[in-house]
Amino acid sequence: MQQIELANKKALDTMLAGDPVLVDVVPAYTVIPALTDRKLILHAGPPVAWDNMCGPMQGAVAGIAVFEGWASDLNDAVQRAAAGEFEFEPNHHFDAVGPMTGMTTRNQPVMVVENRAFENRAYCTINEGLGKVMRFGGNDASVLQRLSWLKDEMGPLLSLALKECGGIGIKNIIARGLTMGDEMHQRNVACSSLLLRELAPALAKVSDNNASLAAALAFMGSNDQFFLNVGMATGKAIMDPVKNIPHSCIVTAMCRNGTDFGIRISALGDQWFTAPVEMPEGLYFPGFTEADANPDMGDSTIVETIGLGGFAMGASPAVAGFVGAGAPSDAGNFTQDMREITFGENPEWTIPAMDYQGVPTGIDIRRVVESGLTPTINTGIAHKEPGIGQVGAGVVRAPMQCFVDALKAFAASEGVQ
Amino acid sequence: MQQIELANKKALDTMLAGDPVLVDVVPAYTVIPALTDRKLILHAGPPVAWDNMCGPMQGAVAGIAVFEGWASDLNDAVQRAAAGEFEFEPNHHFDAVGPMTGMTTRNQPVMVVENRAFENRAYCTINEGLGKVMRFGGNDASVLQRLSWLKDEMGPLLSLALKECGGIGIKNIIARGLTMGDEMHQRNVACSSLLLRELAPALAKVSDNNASLAAALAFMGSNDQFFLNVGMATGKAIMDPVKNIPHSCIVTAMCRNGTDFGIRISALGDQWFTAPVEMPEGLYFPGFTEADANPDMGDSTIVETIGLGGFAMGASPAVAGFVGAGAPSDAGNFTQDMREITFGENPEWTIPAMDYQGVPTGIDIRRVVESGLTPTINTGIAHKEPGIGQVGAGVVRAPMQCFVDALKAFAASEGVQ
Repeated sequence: MQQIELANKKALDTMLAGDPVLVDVVPAYTVIPALTDRKLILHAGPPVAWDNMCGPMQGAVAGIAVFEGWASDLNDAVQRAAAGEFEFEPNHHFDAVGPMTGMTTRNQPVMVVENRAFENRAYCTINEGLGKVMRFGGNDASVLQRLSWLKDEMGPLLSLALKECGGIGIKNIIARGLTMGDEMHQRNVACSSLLLRELAPALAKVSDNNASLAAALAFMGSNDQFFLNVGMATGKAIMDPVKNIPHSCIVTAMCRNGTDFGIRISALGDQWFTAPVEMPEGLYFPGFTEADANPDMGDSTIVETIGLGGFAMGASPAVAGFVGAGAPSDAGNFTQDMREITFGENPEWTIPAMDYQGVPTGIDIRRVVESGLTPTINTGIAHKEPGIGQVGAGVVRAPMQCFVDALKAFAASEGVQ
Repeated sequence: MQQIELANKKALDTMLAGDPVLVDVVPAYTVIPALTDRKLILHAGPPVAWDNMCGPMQGAVAGIAVFEGWASDLNDAVQRAAAGEFEFEPNHHFDAVGPMTGMTTRNQPVMVVENRAFENRAYCTINEGLGKVMRFGGNDASVLQRLSWLKDEMGPLLSLALKECGGIGIKNIIARGLTMGDEMHQRNVACSSLLLRELAPALAKVSDNNASLAAALAFMGSNDQFFLNVGMATGKAIMDPVKNIPHSCIVTAMCRNGTDFGIRISALGDQWFTAPVEMPEGLYFPGFTEADANPDMGDSTIVETIGLGGFAMGASPAVAGFVGAGAPSDAGNFTQDMREITFGENPEWTIPAMDYQGVPTGIDIRRVVESGLTPTINTGIAHKEPGIGQVGAGVVRAPMQCFVDALKAFAASEGVQ
């Protein structure tokens, strides 16, 4: 037991020592070489085959295949996908994460977050904004046009600006965001604004076209969720060095592909423990109901893995209302609950309304199974049909079976029967 | 009594109907003609003569006289001031407000907030940032150089950008800021960031010099209190139409000049009710103590007059810590207390952590006197000597005597003995 406690302490210390810095935006293939020659599509969650993909995931695959020029149109793309022309792998297998459907392919621009304490890097695409977007399974011309603009204009401009300013430290932005009502999953307006104000002078310095500059500033400035993808790459960059600590049963990844929920734990490295994913409970946009909802989806639960999102609900009474999680004044209860299943807290990421207690950090699978409390996750809800998009937001619990299976495998690896 | 209730209801309705829009930045003399030909210096608070001005106010007067070219140096300025060469009047007499010392003179750029519901306008200088600044009595070369840059570069660029985007509505920015931990007096980081992200695309469109543009974006982006002066002009623009409603005893202005605290009430128009100002209780920056502190100062209490600042403390647990107002988790108690002395609440400016109750709005002098509770004000603390600057932040109560005197005068005007 003492050995496990020490290993988990090391895992927590490794998380807290992380120093994530947003350093660049580059075409995905330049940092994920496997994307260069293969028709490889990275997706959210644990592995899933085409036939088992949910509607929005299939819709996003069709859209991104057209975007990459691998299909003439959406129907053609679906046929090619069904015929096995494309390869599918999880983002997590390539140092990457993606929200909702989580498409990452060759020519998409990805943000690069470097963990300067451990010299590893993690990648995530640029958040597309709200409305009809690929991460929620949108795939029409407007969606593809926006992806082209991100590739040709926004990505290169951000790259120049980040080099101009030497990168932007993310730890402090998250710390400030927690004092400004963000929990960094379903609410990112503060961090998005803080990031914009840090980036804006550098963008102005490197731009040689003020119309493009104005468009970039307007895109970032009108997207309250812009920071989500930065936070996700940050989560991945913080958690990857926590992998493979012998005897540690701290969760290093949680993610979902719309079909299955998957977790990894430190001592067991790259092994996935999966269970059927749950349906979020939440609030629906006008005109939509539970009957329209797809089960939970996306790599964005990496933010809960580092103590944000549902774990930081106490920082964000406004999000409690948005996701239908009861009285805003009770938001702190969710954070209190998550203390039951975490190894420690983060002294640099604190919640003023909870008298500056740190966010609960480091999910210990033993505590999850013993307490019967699974991680609380704030999430967007996609329509179950391809091509439609977001229909609501809610709260979902990670399925207990992943944690039970992970604990059994961990016990076996520790020589406990 | 019924007549007073109806009049106060009208006052509250007038406040809530206000539609403040930041529309321009212009040299002060162009909108305050009295500044054109006279050596007139507008200051914070109710009227005060040179001899009665506190140290930082005298320091600011000396600095602004040099800035305007009315004196060769600070010593010369002090001698000329003492000799009666300059005229002094409150900002409030000219549709203006100013933070702390509140200097407004001929060539300073002022932000113009238009209340589109009533077609009146209010003015406030641009916030200078932290450190050594004129509003806290700073007056050295660095202070005057910054004022020149604001006049020559920042002001004109903001003016072009505001015209480009047709003005920026302030009511919604404040509404969002309240969900992001701002109370708009001692904490403005959210509103400052939201304003920047709305202005940035327009700034990019109108700029013909990207180095100047980058400097402007960096200045706004590094000043968490940038929005304070916008909020103050907003408060003045909202409250001026509330003046002179017969039978209304709602407070239309609260301000201090470092010597006296002054209030006005609706039915009694431009009459001041003053009392010696109190000393803030708060936290001091390293190296400073209460012994260094100047009594309370500035027109910024206009934000409490519209339900923000100390009245909105519940939205801002982080500010409770900053101003030394007890446990952050108890911040809501200040807001609850202010409900005792206000006529209603603002349904558009709500506090998520208090389950979206509106901020307490419309200070009723009868309730102040009856309850014995005076308005809670969040404030910065200036050094009592000229030229030094801010030494801390704290909470101060408005002096009861203003309210007692105003109530007596109001009762007399209503024919009550």
